[in-house]
This record gives sequence, structure tokens and C-alpha cells, in this order.
Amino acid sequence: MPKIVDKEEMKNKIMDAAMIVYSDVGFHVATMDAIARQSGLGKGTVYLYFKSKETLTIALVDRIFGRMAEDFIGEKPCASLEEFRKQLRATLDISKEHAAFIRVFFEVLGPSFASDAFVKKVAGFFDQLGAHYAEQLTHLQKADALRSDMDAGITGRALVAMMDGLILHKGLFSISTRKHRQMIDASLDLMFVDPKA
Amino acid sequence: MPKIVDKEEMKNKIMDAAMIVYSDVGFHVATMDAIARQSGLGKGTVYLYFKSKETLTIALVDRIFGRMAEDFIGEKPCASLEEFRKQLRATLDISKEHAAFIRVFFEVLGPSFASDAFVKKVAGFFDQLGAHYAEQLTHLQKADALRSDMDAGITGRALVAMMDGLILHKGLFSISTRKHRQMIDASLDLMFVDPKA
Repeated sequence: MPKIVDKEEMKNKIMDAAMIVYSDVGFHVATMDAIARQSGLGKGTVYLYFKSKETLTIALVDRIFGRMAEDFIGEKPCASLEEFRKQLRATLDISKEHAAFIRVFFEVLGPSFASDAFVKKVAGFFDQLGAHYAEQLTHLQKADALRSDMDAGITGRALVAMMDGLILHKGLFSISTRKHRQMIDASLDLMFVDPKA
Repeated sequence: MPKIVDKEEMKNKIMDAAMIVYSDVGFHVATMDAIARQSGLGKGTVYLYFKSKETLTIALVDRIFGRMAEDFIGEKPCASLEEFRKQLRATLDISKEHAAFIRVFFEVLGPSFASDAFVKKVAGFFDQLGAHYAEQLTHLQKADALRSDMDAGITGRALVAMMDGLILHKGLFSISTRKHRQMIDASLDLMFVDPKA
């Protein structure tokens, strides 16, 4: 009887191996050969799942951002500005593992920013997250918790870019957890408290 | 008589060549040989100015961030919140050339995030910019234009991270100038207008 193969498991195994090889030698130097060796699979098997290094890398980015989307976008509409701030604070307060991954992301996938397909994937994730925050903002406007003259769509997308900046700086510059939490609170105050009063 | 050599000009020539080679073949594959060929100088001459590819890359980053520091940090203390917003808007509204450079930066220098010396340089620039904004915020607090319970130091550094996010998203995801300007205005409103009124 033929072996039953879990396709998702195989793909994940190859992607895990790719991440290790990219980290070791850099994206440009990495070969499908090396990725196959690292995964313990034959080169033919790897090509069965991914027809090129670029296809594999795009799948890897899909997996990373898919997991983030599950974590962040599942949040329910918030009933108050205080609840929204709590959600944002939780999203911004990334784990040590996530912070460490950010350096690896740019180190390993930085060169992929030359690829339009790669950029489109990443941009799509942030647009999706922006739409999610736009919904939250609209909800708060309807509840009279936020001023009504705010363009929720544009503000939601801008909020995502600003949050990404806070998260990237934590990861790239190894800002301490204590200082990063102070920065998160300062940012949320700057955005959601009257600047003058 | 020996030729008179402008050392700064030579260094800039080599750094320009390095940027082209990094863009062409990627940072990891680039060799000092290829950089020398690109610059039209002998390999020995290149090594006279930079003793390794890493030294050269750190000098390149120094140059890039030095130029940005000149542009951004020279700003005078602002007399009003409106003036501060204008300064921030001008800084956030990056040129097409700057936007295009951001992708090249991560594509070419992404792998450098594995180097602590590199990360320290970049972090230093953002800390310096954060201190500059902290001064501006303190000035506005003294002028009663901003609430006094804000920690200017932490808020200044957080503001830099949020601004960097807005700038990076413009460059990485090729957001149109029109949409990006809307995002800038939405961000400044979110930060400097009472969220409820």
C-alpha cells in the first residue's frame, strides 16, 4: 500500500528547512538542493511541493502572515475606546520570539523586496489588517466614542503603518520590554487622549 | 608631483559603486573585487579606504543616515502645535527617490540586520531623532500647547517609530502619493486632535 502523506505537513517541513537554510547562508545563496538536504527529503520530492525557490518563499511568507492574521484579525468589534486600546496594546506587546523573528525576517527575506509578488503578499496582509481596524473605528464612531469626521478607512490603514513601526523598532533595535511597553502606552495616549487637556 | 586625492570623494565613489553591486547581485554575493571593478579603481586602492566589505557597508549606512539627520534634525523648535504638525508632515511626505531607496535598503542591507554593529548604527540614528522630537514636545508643553503629563522622552521615541512605519509602508508597498498624503493627515489628526471632539 502506498504511504499516506500529509501534504500540509510536508509543505511545513520544507518551509521550516528553507527558513534554516536562508538564515545560514542568506536567501540569494540558498539552493533548493540545500533545502532538500536540510529537510531530509529528496530534491524531487521538494520540487513536487514547490516548483521554485521563489514559490517556496512566497508560501513561507503566506504562512507567516496567515498566522499573524489569525492572531490579530479575529478580534471582535470593541464596545468602547478603552477596550480598543486594550486590544491594540495586546497586539503591540509582541513576544520575545516574535521580536527575534523580525530581524530574521529582514535578514532572510530582505532581498525578496525586489520581487513584486512578494511585496504584493505582504502589502495584502497590511491592507487586510487596515480594513479590520477601519471596521473597529467605524464601530466606535457609531457608539459616539470617536469623532465622526475621521475617515475610518484611511485612519485604519495609517494606524496599521504606525503600529508596524512600533513593532519593527522593538524587533530590529532590541528595545527592552520595559521601554517598549512605555512606548506603547505613550503612543496610545498620543492617539487616543486629547493632546491639550 | 603626486596626484592630490580628495579622500571624501574617493570614499563616496567606492560607496556609490558598492550600492550598485549590492543591488545587482545582493549583499552576500557582492565581493570587494566587483566593487573595485564597478568603481573603476584598483582593488588595492579600495582596501586603502575600506578594510572589509563590512566596514564599507557600515560607512554606507553612516552616509545614508547622516544625510537624513541633516535633513530632519536641523529643524528649529516649533512655536505652536500647528507648526510642529507642518514639520512632521514635511518629513513624512518623502520624495519618490527616497521611497524607491527604502526597498533597495531592505533588499540590499536586509542581511546586515544580522550584524550588531550595523543595527547599533541604525538604532543610534532613530534614538537621536527621538531625542530631537522629545525637545520639540517639551517646548510645546512649556508653551501650553500640549498636556504636561506626557513623558516627552518616551513619546518622542515612540513618535519616531510610528513615523518610520508610515515612511516604510509608503516605500515598501508603493502606496500612491495621494493615498500616502491622506494617511499622513489622518495620522497627524489621530495624534494631535482630540479623538472625541
